[in-house]
Amino acid sequence: MRVVVIGAGILGSSVAYHLAMNGIEVEIIDEVHQGKATLAGAGIVSPWATKVTDPEWYKLYGAGARYYAELVEGLTRRGETDLGYGRVGALVVAEDRNELNAAEQRIQSRIVDAPEAGDVRRVSAKEAKQLFPPLRDDLDGIYIPGGARVDGRLLAAAMTRAAVAMGATLRHDHVSLDLQDGRVRCIDSNGSLIEADEVVVTAGAWASQILRPLGLEHPVRPQRGQIVHLRLAGVETRSWPVLLPMTSHYMLAFDDSRVVIGATREDNTGFDYRVTASGQAEVLNAGLAIAPGLATGTIIETRIGFRPAGDSFKPILGRVAGLDGLIIGNGLGASGLSIGPYAGRLLSQICMGEKPEIDTAPYAPASA
Amino acid sequence: MRVVVIGAGILGSSVAYHLAMNGIEVEIIDEVHQGKATLAGAGIVSPWATKVTDPEWYKLYGAGARYYAELVEGLTRRGETDLGYGRVGALVVAEDRNELNAAEQRIQSRIVDAPEAGDVRRVSAKEAKQLFPPLRDDLDGIYIPGGARVDGRLLAAAMTRAAVAMGATLRHDHVSLDLQDGRVRCIDSNGSLIEADEVVVTAGAWASQILRPLGLEHPVRPQRGQIVHLRLAGVETRSWPVLLPMTSHYMLAFDDSRVVIGATREDNTGFDYRVTASGQAEVLNAGLAIAPGLATGTIIETRIGFRPAGDSFKPILGRVAGLDGLIIGNGLGASGLSIGPYAGRLLSQICMGEKPEIDTAPYAPASA
Amino acid sequence: MRVVVIGAGILGSSVAYHLAMNGIEVEIIDEVHQGKATLAGAGIVSPWATKVTDPEWYKLYGAGARYYAELVEGLTRRGETDLGYGRVGALVVAEDRNELNAAEQRIQSRIVDAPEAGDVRRVSAKEAKQLFPPLRDDLDGIYIPGGARVDGRLLAAAMTRAAVAMGATLRHDHVSLDLQDGRVRCIDSNGSLIEADEVVVTAGAWASQILRPLGLEHPVRPQRGQIVHLRLAGVETRSWPVLLPMTSHYMLAFDDSRVVIGATREDNTGFDYRVTASGQAEVLNAGLAIAPGLATGTIIETRIGFRPAGDSFKPILGRVAGLDGLIIGNGLGASGLSIGPYAGRLLSQICMGEKPEIDTAPYAPASA
Amino acid sequence: MRVVVIGAGILGSSVAYHLAMNGIEVEIIDEVHQGKATLAGAGIVSPWATKVTDPEWYKLYGAGARYYAELVEGLTRRGETDLGYGRVGALVVAEDRNELNAAEQRIQSRIVDAPEAGDVRRVSAKEAKQLFPPLRDDLDGIYIPGGARVDGRLLAAAMTRAAVAMGATLRHDHVSLDLQDGRVRCIDSNGSLIEADEVVVTAGAWASQILRPLGLEHPVRPQRGQIVHLRLAGVETRSWPVLLPMTSHYMLAFDDSRVVIGATREDNTGFDYRVTASGQAEVLNAGLAIAPGLATGTIIETRIGFRPAGDSFKPILGRVAGLDGLIIGNGLGASGLSIGPYAGRLLSQICMGEKPEIDTAPYAPASA
Repeated sequence: MRVVVIGAGILGSSVAYHLAMNGIEVEIIDEVHQGKATLAGAGIVSPWATKVTDPEWYKLYGAGARYYAELVEGLTRRGETDLGYGRVGALVVAEDRNELNAAEQRIQSRIVDAPEAGDVRRVSAKEAKQLFPPLRDDLDGIYIPGGARVDGRLLAAAMTRAAVAMGATLRHDHVSLDLQDGRVRCIDSNGSLIEADEVVVTAGAWASQILRPLGLEHPVRPQRGQIVHLRLAGVETRSWPVLLPMTSHYMLAFDDSRVVIGATREDNTGFDYRVTASGQAEVLNAGLAIAPGLATGTIIETRIGFRPAGDSFKPILGRVAGLDGLIIGNGLGASGLSIGPYAGRLLSQICMGEKPEIDTAPYAPASA
Repeated sequence: MRVVVIGAGILGSSVAYHLAMNGIEVEIIDEVHQGKATLAGAGIVSPWATKVTDPEWYKLYGAGARYYAELVEGLTRRGETDLGYGRVGALVVAEDRNELNAAEQRIQSRIVDAPEAGDVRRVSAKEAKQLFPPLRDDLDGIYIPGGARVDGRLLAAAMTRAAVAMGATLRHDHVSLDLQDGRVRCIDSNGSLIEADEVVVTAGAWASQILRPLGLEHPVRPQRGQIVHLRLAGVETRSWPVLLPMTSHYMLAFDDSRVVIGATREDNTGFDYRVTASGQAEVLNAGLAIAPGLATGTIIETRIGFRPAGDSFKPILGRVAGLDGLIIGNGLGASGLSIGPYAGRLLSQICMGEKPEIDTAPYAPASA
Repeated sequence: MRVVVIGAGILGSSVAYHLAMNGIEVEIIDEVHQGKATLAGAGIVSPWATKVTDPEWYKLYGAGARYYAELVEGLTRRGETDLGYGRVGALVVAEDRNELNAAEQRIQSRIVDAPEAGDVRRVSAKEAKQLFPPLRDDLDGIYIPGGARVDGRLLAAAMTRAAVAMGATLRHDHVSLDLQDGRVRCIDSNGSLIEADEVVVTAGAWASQILRPLGLEHPVRPQRGQIVHLRLAGVETRSWPVLLPMTSHYMLAFDDSRVVIGATREDNTGFDYRVTASGQAEVLNAGLAIAPGLATGTIIETRIGFRPAGDSFKPILGRVAGLDGLIIGNGLGASGLSIGPYAGRLLSQICMGEKPEIDTAPYAPASA
Repeated sequence: MRVVVIGAGILGSSVAYHLAMNGIEVEIIDEVHQGKATLAGAGIVSPWATKVTDPEWYKLYGAGARYYAELVEGLTRRGETDLGYGRVGALVVAEDRNELNAAEQRIQSRIVDAPEAGDVRRVSAKEAKQLFPPLRDDLDGIYIPGGARVDGRLLAAAMTRAAVAMGATLRHDHVSLDLQDGRVRCIDSNGSLIEADEVVVTAGAWASQILRPLGLEHPVRPQRGQIVHLRLAGVETRSWPVLLPMTSHYMLAFDDSRVVIGATREDNTGFDYRVTASGQAEVLNAGLAIAPGLATGTIIETRIGFRPAGDSFKPILGRVAGLDGLIIGNGLGASGLSIGPYAGRLLSQICMGEKPEIDTAPYAPASA
């Protein structure tokens, strides 16, 4: 069997990694787009505090978090060291104590089935500031030891590299799909056919355009996120928890004295790859309001990502009924880095004709 | 009438500029791609020395060069000052004297009908080095006073800006085309229809993918060019002629003490947006062999462009027979900056239902 | 006579240009520092609205503005085209009408002797917005037709290039000064003596360190400015006036659809070359409060400059009494781009032993 | 005791780290220079093949290599993970077999006292290519298992961060030194005195200028190195050995699919911070001649470093006789990343008044 994976973001690189691990011949085709969500995104692995209530979605979110331990172990065993992954805990804070109490209840009810969340506890404002030093000094919080962060750019590169080490090939090109006799065909930029028994489209926000020639109206749109990276020179940030202020703006730290503030959620901007004055101001103002200690941090970069946002919050994973040889993974939105690696594994199981380890029927794409 | 122009490179921006000048409602949709040929290319406007012999192609090339005077005048009148345009002359050199003699004959025969080329003359190695100081001291040459250079990035931006000033709109998005009842439709990344009486596809190397869903097998492929920009700090380079060493590697200078060495011509690399070790070495070695005085120049940038290269050297310009509302401009290859502005004017005439000022039948796209 | 000019910012490049124009042998030595004020600064040439009241300072400020016409004419005649200079007018606005009235009085009293300011007039909020479209719609203003803007980076490069074209030499190195028998000596990074009859130190914020080994306690300190550059793609910004909102934050536009918002004024940060979270937020918030139409502008760059700020607002220009062969130009602070070219001309006159065209005694450096 | 360390390169950060570890109060003052050698350099830890024969120099070189194990262990224990360090082995190759034989003899004689070099052995061209896949297929070599590589940028940042975690402070500023009553004083860019019992000048190529005001003619000059970084996307490069082709051009790989080719050795260029056309061509041509498999690698960056090169190859380490409170570390040249961490430890011992663990008398700076 020969599988072509279109898109080497967090989802596609995971599909390729899991297929290659099973001895399947894989070609990864990754277009050089600006604004890939995986490369821009800071990965928060902490499903327990989410406000989203759809049980199917949460099921995948929780399983995605749980899978990280196995994933990291597997990659490390294969020699990959540089994943930007750290089980540093998550710290939930809120301006409004009622909101914090509600969050605590939500978390407590969820971790009953999630021992990996660790011993969740309320922390005082003082403790919170010890955990995340740039924080305001008046916010108490909830600390979830099992929370983790991951650098999407590094993790996807590591999975791709591991796939290549196991025999996969990688090409940078812009491909298009068409149909012949009910089967999907894949054509490269030189007009040559690329042989494939299965085509897995994990093209994120670009998927709708790739799928349209097949007659599919795929319901995913680009949602722009602007995310600011700060350096705190000389400061040990490695162990700081992910900071979740119960708004759409979060903060997290990486090993290299770096703190990330994210992110705008801009719909209807299309693929307009730009850092805007208002977007940058929004993110900085939100971050400094919660963590004034970041004021003197150095802005080293603002990343732009187009999240693949669907009509609902539910991911789209599986075969397209009525078309031969097409599998889609998409719609993870802002949770891509949490769910992506696990969802990629499920897609690899579907691709190999196995029953996926959790039922993916609720996430099936619309039929052709 | 409402026209949508897809792609704001040298060709698309010219179409939009000429349409807007005629009061037509234009929407320019420009995807943020890396590797756009116009943004990477250094424009040489000097058709007279070309080795290409196809008379149809040369006709357009010559007319493109001649049109520049009018274009620059029009843009300047509209307040655009920063085109990187200079009628600085062209200097043809060759290692092999026979080759230089052949070039001289070719040029002399062509300039009979091209007074804008000026008073072409043979120059000694010493004179050549005075014209282009970094040159080797043993190469005599042919000097063509009418040669010019232009900065594609600045020129396209100026035409787009002038179009917008006359009422055109500009959007950055990724669109796709499909067919309904024999008419072309244009859909944006949010899945919304974009109203258009005519769609002009001037999408360069990306055109084949955009057109494939319409059932068209467009014969244009990306050809990668790597082009090196050097700064010679404090050196007045503004008046240096374009240097044409009768190979595919040329040199030209811009106002800001900048000299450009171009370019690789790499087929079958797809849309692989990268500066490669061998590409960079090829360009530098070629440049330093001819112009050793560039050795201490500062490398400020290497640009990558994907030229839209067709099966033949002939451009593709015109309506697609059998499809309503579709006009294509493409295939200018390495001559895009010479021909583009004029070809855009021809396309605008076709779009408005006028007879184009030169017959475009030889450049007609294949029918649907 | 052989003159060494240390520092090729706006002041040093002007000294070199004016000396070279007079046939003097000049060597310009420019260290590659990050944070040079000239390269970062957006130049506003509009002295008439300033709140500073020191008459000596204003005299130089006014003369600096007046000199621009001659400077631009001279550079243009020498073939320099790309100065970023535009006499686009200045628009003074204020939230507080009393403040605006006070500004109007100040301006009116000053332009009595300054016909180059043009016909100053009050404009309605509507007119103000027509002049500078991103402006809020509730601010009336004062329009000064003679205001201008200039790009320091381009202007300094043009003066340096013109100097080199007239025989000056340019070197990038880090030099140090010492004293021998009461004369200043200049030593390069290889420990070699650089021959000089006169050493002109125009090293901006770095001057104090360069001068300290001579036993001079030079009173200039680095003041950090962060300045944000926005692009408004497709928008014709060329003719927009300089916007002066009576705070330390101003806005101005350049030819290439670019708008600049400046700047922080940060003392006691030393040479800490960084874009900070709070600095960026300050500038963006200030700009968006006055000109909300910039919200969707693209942030293309934030520049950092260390202004040479003295104890007073007065520049320091002239010979150091008690030391042979040393001339200092410094302390222009945030007005460097207005005053610099003219002050450089005065220094060149001092250097050539001429009487400077205005009396520089009030600006004399402290003696050794 | 309060120590000021000027310069946070590999040497200064090591001094600060070892002092802080001993409870000493340290302030690190690091000027933001472009061209710092540590940030540019790729660190090869493999003293055994060097052609340099000075026994004092080799003693330090060998001890520096040996110390790495302890250093890495200590940093790891303190939580630093990201050092770019790998004990990947070194592969010595040569075009000329006689040269290779000579190298083998040299290595064998040296490793008698260096068990950390591991089991050195001759490898066939085939084996050599397996170890370093882009290599030509006709070069046999000598494999030294104990060779290692390190990323200077990451290692210096880690040592600085660890120092700060133990109480050191870090400031970015430009300072100058002077003498008062025979003691060295340190003054910041605001003219304020910085309190210090000892000043350690580890300012690399900039040291001569910093020391000149003290009356010292320090014999160190900047030597420019240009070093090219390539990415081999998807390729596992982590375990590739350092490649030493017995010329001044070497290659080494890092974890992130990156291969580095170094470097030019340019004297008399001063602090001219630039990538030059000839420098880039030299490095690429040298690399591709030995390792043609790098041809399609992506050029991601060219770094510039100014190595502090002394008159001899011997480092300069110790107190300056005749001046109170001044310690100098300098002159490590191209071996800074091998020797620097250990030399920093020796300097910290000198600073604390201890007898350094190897005799530093042969490296003593000239007296005042």
